[in-house]
Amino acid sequence: MRVNDCAALLRGWDDILLVTHRNPDGDTVGSAAALCSALRRLGKRAWLYPNREINVRLRRFAEPYLALDAFQGAHCVAVDVANEKMLADGFSQKVELCIDHHPSNSHYAEKTLLDDKRAACGEIVLRLIEALCGAPDKTEADLLYIALSTDCGCFQYANTDAHALRSAAKLLDAGAESAALNQLFFRRVSRARLKLEGLVYDNLSFHRDGAVVVAIITQAMLRAAGAAEGDLDDLAGLAGRAEGHRVSITIRENADGTSRVSARSGPDFDCCALCAVFGGGGHKMAAGCEIKAAPEKARELLLQVVDEVWQ
Amino acid sequence: MRVNDCAALLRGWDDILLVTHRNPDGDTVGSAAALCSALRRLGKRAWLYPNREINVRLRRFAEPYLALDAFQGAHCVAVDVANEKMLADGFSQKVELCIDHHPSNSHYAEKTLLDDKRAACGEIVLRLIEALCGAPDKTEADLLYIALSTDCGCFQYANTDAHALRSAAKLLDAGAESAALNQLFFRRVSRARLKLEGLVYDNLSFHRDGAVVVAIITQAMLRAAGAAEGDLDDLAGLAGRAEGHRVSITIRENADGTSRVSARSGPDFDCCALCAVFGGGGHKMAAGCEIKAAPEKARELLLQVVDEVWQ
Repeated sequence: MRVNDCAALLRGWDDILLVTHRNPDGDTVGSAAALCSALRRLGKRAWLYPNREINVRLRRFAEPYLALDAFQGAHCVAVDVANEKMLADGFSQKVELCIDHHPSNSHYAEKTLLDDKRAACGEIVLRLIEALCGAPDKTEADLLYIALSTDCGCFQYANTDAHALRSAAKLLDAGAESAALNQLFFRRVSRARLKLEGLVYDNLSFHRDGAVVVAIITQAMLRAAGAAEGDLDDLAGLAGRAEGHRVSITIRENADGTSRVSARSGPDFDCCALCAVFGGGGHKMAAGCEIKAAPEKARELLLQVVDEVWQ
Repeated sequence: MRVNDCAALLRGWDDILLVTHRNPDGDTVGSAAALCSALRRLGKRAWLYPNREINVRLRRFAEPYLALDAFQGAHCVAVDVANEKMLADGFSQKVELCIDHHPSNSHYAEKTLLDDKRAACGEIVLRLIEALCGAPDKTEADLLYIALSTDCGCFQYANTDAHALRSAAKLLDAGAESAALNQLFFRRVSRARLKLEGLVYDNLSFHRDGAVVVAIITQAMLRAAGAAEGDLDDLAGLAGRAEGHRVSITIRENADGTSRVSARSGPDFDCCALCAVFGGGGHKMAAGCEIKAAPEKARELLLQVVDEVWQ
């Protein structure tokens, strides 16, 4: 459906419950919270489903909108949720409307506002808020800036296009405190995270003339760094900073001594084919798998298969 | 002067020499090279002064425009150069026009196109190229993207405003390959640099309840990492990632065993006052000094003075 039709639909509703996705990121939480705020500005009762997986950093922004468990809502809207399996854990109500940017959206909702050209769902919600209220207010601008900037790596990732930059400019015009938000989401990290990054960088290994870079993160390293769950975001990105590589592989030791693997590449290597050999999957340039072996052994097995995938 | 007047002035000239600043960065080199390209599109002879300090990464982009020493130019234009002392080393010709964004510009040139509200000089050159040629071509868009993105930390620094984001959007519209340039300038680093970052993060020390974070970089660490001069950019920024600190101090051991100090803070601590005690100086939030002592001793001395500055 079109943005204006979606706005008209929402104008006719009240008691709206907004649902985010499992393993929630800045885009699903920021977009849903911003829409919730705009709906309240229109005088409606609107809440976010209390997704328990929201991390500390995002929770601070979502807090004013999180429903008590009792709130069911007369209408349910999923935001940035590609398919039913990705709905926040435990959510089983009928989804009347889905607002999303994932090309893989399964059209599970009764109606779907989908624009798969957008870098972040926050850009679609920005247009929707413009249709509903004219412009986002300062709070919504902050929330949508979180949505957009986290989904495109603060404008560094390849999904950052001219539209994303213009959306960000609009949010700054509307009062988004981008400098403070950039500090919080991109610049400042915990001592434990810094220590852990130090251990990871210090122990990278390079293979096949530098074409393959492998990071191993053991339980001992996590203990040495004092790392908690919140310190482990995007660990797979660290090895990817190494100059000249074609595939980066990050192997994290599970508590039981087995290995969880993430592979990342450019367009000239098929990470999905690599991980499929071990029963995993994903996309060509980003995939994962589990290997029932210790990290060093897993590395050996992976390197053998890398050679085969290259042939 | 205004952009249109500046464009009219340049249209009347030929044999133009563009000068960059000492210790050249992406903004001075990218802006000057883009303007050089646009002037050539207008059929003019234009070259960049062969600034010998241009680093390997930037040189690749500047190469087609760098003059042989013999070229003097009938007209000389300084780009992103705030005062005469900052002109590329050895440059002594009269500067007829200066295009700049530094608030401290000393108006040393005969005419000055200054817009000190812009995050990068590249944004002013973009407007100038629009006035001269309608729009930047793909090469100029790449060069101006380098100028803008490097000056605002790929849109992460506090100087990134809505205008900067819209300028970047225009450059992407004009064909700038932002994804590849972001990889080159922000994402990919040498193995030696990664190793060195690992050693630095692994050895941070925290003082005064975490308000002070100190990074020590010894000659032994540089050797262990195999770090060359090109691997040492912005080392002072690493400790600044630590959550919760108010002052970050980076102490690099000189070849003779003495210490070179960089201090960084937010607005609530005076780095310049700290460094001035040791004969150094700088700005309130970024200053430096030399201390004739080994790094660990220098740390001890600095921490004593930090307490005094706080009183």
